[in-house]
Amino acid sequence: MRNLNENNITDAVIARFQGCDDPRLKAVLTSLVKHLHAFVRDVEPTEQEWAFGIDFLTRTGHMCDDKRQEFILLSDTLGVTMLVDAINHRIAGKATESTVLGPFYVADPPETPMGGGIGWNVEGEPLFVEGQVRSAEGSPLSGVVVDVWQSDGDGFYDVQKSGMDSPSLRARFRTGADGRYAFWAVTPSAYPIPTDGPVGQMLEATGRHPYRPAHVHFMLKADGFETLVTQVFAEGDSYLDSDAVFGVKDSLVRTYEQRPPGKAPDGRVVERPWRHLSYDFGLKPL
Amino acid sequence: MRNLNENNITDAVIARFQGCDDPRLKAVLTSLVKHLHAFVRDVEPTEQEWAFGIDFLTRTGHMCDDKRQEFILLSDTLGVTMLVDAINHRIAGKATESTVLGPFYVADPPETPMGGGIGWNVEGEPLFVEGQVRSAEGSPLSGVVVDVWQSDGDGFYDVQKSGMDSPSLRARFRTGADGRYAFWAVTPSAYPIPTDGPVGQMLEATGRHPYRPAHVHFMLKADGFETLVTQVFAEGDSYLDSDAVFGVKDSLVRTYEQRPPGKAPDGRVVERPWRHLSYDFGLKPL
Repeated sequence: MRNLNENNITDAVIARFQGCDDPRLKAVLTSLVKHLHAFVRDVEPTEQEWAFGIDFLTRTGHMCDDKRQEFILLSDTLGVTMLVDAINHRIAGKATESTVLGPFYVADPPETPMGGGIGWNVEGEPLFVEGQVRSAEGSPLSGVVVDVWQSDGDGFYDVQKSGMDSPSLRARFRTGADGRYAFWAVTPSAYPIPTDGPVGQMLEATGRHPYRPAHVHFMLKADGFETLVTQVFAEGDSYLDSDAVFGVKDSLVRTYEQRPPGKAPDGRVVERPWRHLSYDFGLKPL
Repeated sequence: MRNLNENNITDAVIARFQGCDDPRLKAVLTSLVKHLHAFVRDVEPTEQEWAFGIDFLTRTGHMCDDKRQEFILLSDTLGVTMLVDAINHRIAGKATESTVLGPFYVADPPETPMGGGIGWNVEGEPLFVEGQVRSAEGSPLSGVVVDVWQSDGDGFYDVQKSGMDSPSLRARFRTGADGRYAFWAVTPSAYPIPTDGPVGQMLEATGRHPYRPAHVHFMLKADGFETLVTQVFAEGDSYLDSDAVFGVKDSLVRTYEQRPPGKAPDGRVVERPWRHLSYDFGLKPL
């Protein structure tokens, strides 16, 4: 294989994977080469554009560390993440719909007692979140691991804030015998995804805004059920129809109800206005 | 745009670029989204496979620094670089064919007098390289900037060797009035591209060898002509037909002639066996 040109190089590269003894890997790389080459043939990049692409990917990699995942942001903003999500969760049935994980999940959040607060070290409008986790047939599921995480009222996650070394607005609960979960947080805000990296430059250069509508993230795990990764969005948010990462579904939008000062459903007396979000989840059997 | 699914998400993402006022950027990103989504639809990655892809790209970015460019290696080993090269240099005519730049070029190599040695601080079999640079019509071109770089006899570039802080086996010459260039180097070796990163893991996992046939790199720049980036490969090398980066063309293969100890063309007396590589370049007018 020499004297390769634009007509024969794709077959030559694919042939080079013939010795691959992992059929799935071989299929994925064969498809990658086909589609990547088709993209190159379609746009016919100049050498300067190719070099820009290399540099863009390099800078994207250099933005990534243990608190920042710029390649996930890139996947999110190009709609790849939601496409992968859609392909992997085709039939929700009575189960809750899924959406993007996002770049701010941190594994093993602090175990927190049911009904506890997760807004450690942050100010904001109190938000009481509660609901029930059920099987798709409607039976309450106990012992479900419920990870929650969210931005604060200014739109920032703990990992984005300098000087905040301990977790905040992220926690792990386990549902009780009645399948219920509940916690106190602060009302999250719509926020821009981080724009100080290559993805932000791409959005800026293409006239796209970087905002996501306000939401609380959930990840639910239970034996015998598919892990559910989803978000519950705030009804009325300005960005529900132009989410920078294409993640909004009607079934995931709820009113974060405004409440006057007074007694909350858990008996706590709140001295100031607060909000109430109620959302029940359905898990899909494996 | 909400409730996006695998059928409507591609159009929704493309629509998001409608406000882009740079028509070329808009066209490139529209094509990227189409082909990237087509790849995802084709392979239907699991969420674990998607996460592996994110991690692979992240690790590739983290391998890159001022002496290592893993994304260029990835582009090279997937045949993308040679495809971009082919598209940008469709008609060589009487001009020399181009091939990949590779990841080891360093800008502004040391200016070196015509006929000088570039094998500073390295051992190896002496190699005398010479030739003429001409216009495609055959006239000698003077004042052409000729950058050369190559591996040593063990297959390593200076930037790959720890403790080697000054350039070696890379230099810049300028052709004289007769259009000729000449220098002394050492005979390069076939070598593996760096395999200690994600690209090496891809090659290993797919049963591909990482070798490139022995070659000397050239970049030629002259006013009024296209910059020529090419390589001259050693006839007889075992890897001419399986170059890990798909870069070999017959017109770029020459015998590195073996010579006994004695007088070289430039009058230098060589005490040991040496080699002689002669290659004339043709530049394409802009």
